[in-house]
Amino acid sequence: MTDLHSAARLLNERDDYVILSHASPDGDTVGSAYALCHALHKLGKRARVECSDPIPTRYDYFTERVESQQFEAGTVVAVDVASTMLLGKLRHTYGDGIWLCIDHHESNDGYAEHNFVLPDAAANCENIFRVIEALGVQIDGVIADALFTGVSTDTGCFRYGNCTGETHRIAARLMELGADAENINRLMFETKSRARIEVERQALESIEYHFDNRCAVMLVTAEMRRALDQSEIDGLAALPRQIEGVTVGVTMREMDDCYKISLRTHAPLNASEICARLGGGGHARAAGCSLKMPLDEAKAAVLAAVKAEMEMA
Amino acid sequence: MTDLHSAARLLNERDDYVILSHASPDGDTVGSAYALCHALHKLGKRARVECSDPIPTRYDYFTERVESQQFEAGTVVAVDVASTMLLGKLRHTYGDGIWLCIDHHESNDGYAEHNFVLPDAAANCENIFRVIEALGVQIDGVIADALFTGVSTDTGCFRYGNCTGETHRIAARLMELGADAENINRLMFETKSRARIEVERQALESIEYHFDNRCAVMLVTAEMRRALDQSEIDGLAALPRQIEGVTVGVTMREMDDCYKISLRTHAPLNASEICARLGGGGHARAAGCSLKMPLDEAKAAVLAAVKAEMEMA
Repeated sequence: MTDLHSAARLLNERDDYVILSHASPDGDTVGSAYALCHALHKLGKRARVECSDPIPTRYDYFTERVESQQFEAGTVVAVDVASTMLLGKLRHTYGDGIWLCIDHHESNDGYAEHNFVLPDAAANCENIFRVIEALGVQIDGVIADALFTGVSTDTGCFRYGNCTGETHRIAARLMELGADAENINRLMFETKSRARIEVERQALESIEYHFDNRCAVMLVTAEMRRALDQSEIDGLAALPRQIEGVTVGVTMREMDDCYKISLRTHAPLNASEICARLGGGGHARAAGCSLKMPLDEAKAAVLAAVKAEMEMA
Repeated sequence: MTDLHSAARLLNERDDYVILSHASPDGDTVGSAYALCHALHKLGKRARVECSDPIPTRYDYFTERVESQQFEAGTVVAVDVASTMLLGKLRHTYGDGIWLCIDHHESNDGYAEHNFVLPDAAANCENIFRVIEALGVQIDGVIADALFTGVSTDTGCFRYGNCTGETHRIAARLMELGADAENINRLMFETKSRARIEVERQALESIEYHFDNRCAVMLVTAEMRRALDQSEIDGLAALPRQIEGVTVGVTMREMDDCYKISLRTHAPLNASEICARLGGGGHARAAGCSLKMPLDEAKAAVLAAVKAEMEMA
């Protein structure tokens, strides 16, 4: 395992960086990638971000402020990527040649030549913050906005159990270094489209309760999904766990060829272990998997996995 | 104006403290009062909390851990109380004899003999934190939970524009001093009763849009109100402002003899100034007033005040 100062030293040694985000990019992987890219530019190096999916436009407020550079790929760095399986189609291009990985997933399998992985960090942007500081780069408003976005989105705006005192301290530093926290939080958390509000109402109506109301299962149909953009869909998964008494919130999204399952749990139930039973994975309180089967079978499979984990807890 | 060290010195001088919270108590006034009360106990002084309304049971996780003491009232301290008008029926008992006020409202009118008011603090619990530190009291888990509750609830879990780097730094300190942030945030923000979810759906259906959809007006009827407890009702007021494009979110609650109006705004619109036009007040982004008139008239009055403020902004 590589430590912080080795990670910074390694980044100083090379050039022509391709920085990889995971597929279906979220605020933490996009924030990590663009913050590191901008920091490398400030060191006079060439760097660009690549992702197998388009970067959502909702992050324009920092991504558009990072210079776009074209050059022949030299050194490949992956950020917030627990496994090369999560690189999507870029796995084939870069999967075997990743030189440095900076990540915070406990399940990280050490696929890179050098792996700087701190699983205590609520967001990988905390680790990128430390790396950029260790590189001696002055954090500007662009980097601060990118990193604050990752820290804030991966903790549900400082709400979830992964958020530590250190997370708050880094948030404080980033605000003082220019992160426009009010605007970022408004964009990420306070703003819902009218379509989202309508779909939310339909989704809440679909909820079924199991295991003495400790498990709530919510359905997002293909039609509901089409009314929203990806980030809005992602946000829905938080709803079932919010209901009083619910310790496992399940969201089932109808995709073209499968059901995507998102799990959110309260302690002591481990979402990652429930999803591991179904071929998926993630974090202790938020995890996911995909099931290629009809709705009723998929629901039965999820409920069986939840039940098994409840009996062990 | 009294400074921090004078406030601490004053508290050290006397005994037999009655600590007053404002009526319709929220997390910040309750957290402020119980944290200070417990700190005074730790200094060997007698202290109790009084409020014109019952302290909601949702704060039991810290209020029940503060010793309940009976004694003849000696020194009266008000916390998070901008004006004696907000003391409810306790105004008649104590309104003219308040010795020390610790508050964070810009509109505080200096009604006490000594006033320690820092309006830059997002939550008054930040000021109480500073006072308790200045008193030299070791912050324990009870005080940390109480103060974290105020800091977290008054900032919408670190989301609103009032939250500063200093707010995050105090949150970090409180977590390290024993605040069970995960549990507190779950209780305050992550948990909704099934009744709340049903009322939320009805309330969202009631929304009317005005001024090119920049203003959303939501109605909470007496029947909807009776299905929920006070804290759940309070939370509803955040909904209209969350809708994309809405800069003024208005919630109208049907009370026995009036409509209670809650306003939430996005910058640059000032909620406090809109409510001041209607005889109310509050903060720049969250304010309120009461209107004794039928629904249509009340709505017209609010819309006229919103319009006047929009034209000035």
